Amino acid sequence: MNPLDFKIDAKSGEARAGVLTTRRGRIETPVFMPVGTAGTVKGIRFEALESELDANIILGNTYHLWLRPGIDVIKAAGGLHRFMGWNGALLTDSGGFQVWSLGALRKITEEGTEFRSHLDGSLRFLSPEVSMEVQAALGSDIVMVFDECAPGEASHEETERSMNLTARWAKRSKDAFDRLQTEGGDTGQIESEGLSGAQALFGIVQGAGHLDLRRNSLEQTVNIGFDGYAIGGLSVGEEKSLMFEVIEDIAPRMPRDVPRYLMGVGTPEDLIEAVARGVDMFDCVLPTRNGRTGQAFTSRGKLNVKNAQWMNDTRPLDESCGCSVCRRHSRAYLRHLYTSGEMLASILLTHHNLAFFLDTMRGVRQAIRSGDFPKFRREFTERLDANGE
Amino acid sequence: MNPLDFKIDAKSGEARAGVLTTRRGRIETPVFMPVGTAGTVKGIRFEALESELDANIILGNTYHLWLRPGIDVIKAAGGLHRFMGWNGALLTDSGGFQVWSLGALRKITEEGTEFRSHLDGSLRFLSPEVSMEVQAALGSDIVMVFDECAPGEASHEETERSMNLTARWAKRSKDAFDRLQTEGGDTGQIESEGLSGAQALFGIVQGAGHLDLRRNSLEQTVNIGFDGYAIGGLSVGEEKSLMFEVIEDIAPRMPRDVPRYLMGVGTPEDLIEAVARGVDMFDCVLPTRNGRTGQAFTSRGKLNVKNAQWMNDTRPLDESCGCSVCRRHSRAYLRHLYTSGEMLASILLTHHNLAFFLDTMRGVRQAIRSGDFPKFRREFTERLDANGE
Repeated sequence: MNPLDFKIDAKSGEARAGVLTTRRGRIETPVFMPVGTAGTVKGIRFEALESELDANIILGNTYHLWLRPGIDVIKAAGGLHRFMGWNGALLTDSGGFQVWSLGALRKITEEGTEFRSHLDGSLRFLSPEVSMEVQAALGSDIVMVFDECAPGEASHEETERSMNLTARWAKRSKDAFDRLQTEGGDTGQIESEGLSGAQALFGIVQGAGHLDLRRNSLEQTVNIGFDGYAIGGLSVGEEKSLMFEVIEDIAPRMPRDVPRYLMGVGTPEDLIEAVARGVDMFDCVLPTRNGRTGQAFTSRGKLNVKNAQWMNDTRPLDESCGCSVCRRHSRAYLRHLYTSGEMLASILLTHHNLAFFLDTMRGVRQAIRSGDFPKFRREFTERLDANGE
Repeated sequence: MNPLDFKIDAKSGEARAGVLTTRRGRIETPVFMPVGTAGTVKGIRFEALESELDANIILGNTYHLWLRPGIDVIKAAGGLHRFMGWNGALLTDSGGFQVWSLGALRKITEEGTEFRSHLDGSLRFLSPEVSMEVQAALGSDIVMVFDECAPGEASHEETERSMNLTARWAKRSKDAFDRLQTEGGDTGQIESEGLSGAQALFGIVQGAGHLDLRRNSLEQTVNIGFDGYAIGGLSVGEEKSLMFEVIEDIAPRMPRDVPRYLMGVGTPEDLIEAVARGVDMFDCVLPTRNGRTGQAFTSRGKLNVKNAQWMNDTRPLDESCGCSVCRRHSRAYLRHLYTSGEMLASILLTHHNLAFFLDTMRGVRQAIRSGDFPKFRREFTERLDANGE
């Protein structure tokens, strides 16, 4: 039995709508996963995520949780779901991207990555084996292999070296993962009808902006064999046109019967464009992070809530939005909260932004299923940038 | 017709349980009012206040709202209720306490108080007439007279001078308030069955710790005539025994058929002790402010969520509490959120603390009505301080 069940029920060009069933329930795809870095999706309560927003899967960061509160605490609580109080599905990244982002603070060898904790400067070591062990202890429903990310501007040679390292780490990740599943390392294991109840493991395609390396990476990753495949190393500073070139080339070559996950991307329009190229899953900090800095995503484009022009504006952030923030609060009020440094500004903007991202994906799924995706995509793009900012 | 209807339906010694009906609905007393300083009860959404927490009245601060966003913005929105998106009742203080708290930044004369804004240093002037005008524009359901607060350690002479100034300001507040009601200055005016639909005005008894001055202040205030009476100038640094001495002496002398409001007090045990002495209404920043600094109020006393002893504690903050935070989250998780600087720590602790205060008052009302208040009071006190902190 597999740890996941994935069925595509509608297509529109390369765009796919389907249902991904994990041991913690049913997820309609294409899906956007809110980012819950340190065991919390910043600024929002789980009740709102699971009721109004209907988010069925969120992401957790191995790097952050490993450093704090640490694996012993989460194990003692019975895994990350129980520790947080979240009953939906959880995907955890491998920590590879975070340690790579540390720059000068880390040293990458064949064995793994040595780095200094950004919290206390202590020396730590992360490898495929350690990452799998940590993710098993977290008990996430979808585990990511430990990978290395090449910088967007890396040469072909440097990227190839990095991509091949990622492939070798992918194999070690798979071996360590399989051993841990056999040994019962997965704290999140639950009975689930029709599924194995075990964790799922996704491979990651690297290769920066070099299409030949991307294809090579995909081939090596598929040869190892995973429950799903991700495109990593995009949206890390490269041109947006290059990002879409890679997605357009790689996504349709990825296995058709398992989920395709584009890591760390992007704006609502990025999501729609990637869906059009065959991607099923997304995560991004934009809705939560920008919510905390006063930026709202709306159907008319971005809206900076602190602008003086909203001082007496009684309209909601987005007149087309039916979320609980837009039903109750005006731009004038949100501007007041933000300029007064009130926490409620972050809470409300985060809620609205997540609602907007998740509603957009609901719209995408409906459009694919009703055959209107090309129209949806065109109209969505046309409406943007009408906020007059 | 009156702006308020107040009916006491049960007594236990001096303790009273009743129903206060404002133009925005029914409030069971004794009642605790969460503090919504700048148009937001910090860290909590109105949805939670009105549904799970069942808070029917909150407090707004005239001083803060007057300075930011300013009266023009709130008037343009149609009053504070509409500006915030809050449909329950609102009580606003007069700004007297805030400008008094500015210390060296303000100058008090017979006419009013000149001060520099803590936001931009601009010179401002607040008087009974200005305060009434601002509170009419806010459209709060209960307005407080503009008063002066004497320091806890003030001499008899100094306190007497201050108390008499408060009495003259109370008369000027009443005159200005009546004029504004006639002129339609109240932006919150609504149709309400059996009530006038106008704002209500409460007087404030001052006199620091001097009982003769407190009694004199009460007499002067009652002679002017208000819709309710508050005890001000307590919990400003004086000994707690002195505070209860004043409440015990003054509360039972206050008019029996209108609400008695103790301003800015206090801990859950303070509320119960003041109820036992005849007080009906309370407001305090403790549940919200302490929530943001990691302190939880529980039936077993205060709990500092950052303590290492909770690292692996899977119990809720308060095992006797049925709030949505205690139903879902452990001390270990809340400690992790707080030590990681996560906003959700403040959100969840604020929610629990408010739930605890409001539940306590629900318990107080039930106990008074069932005749068990002395037992409730005794048992509540006995349970405290069992958290081992």
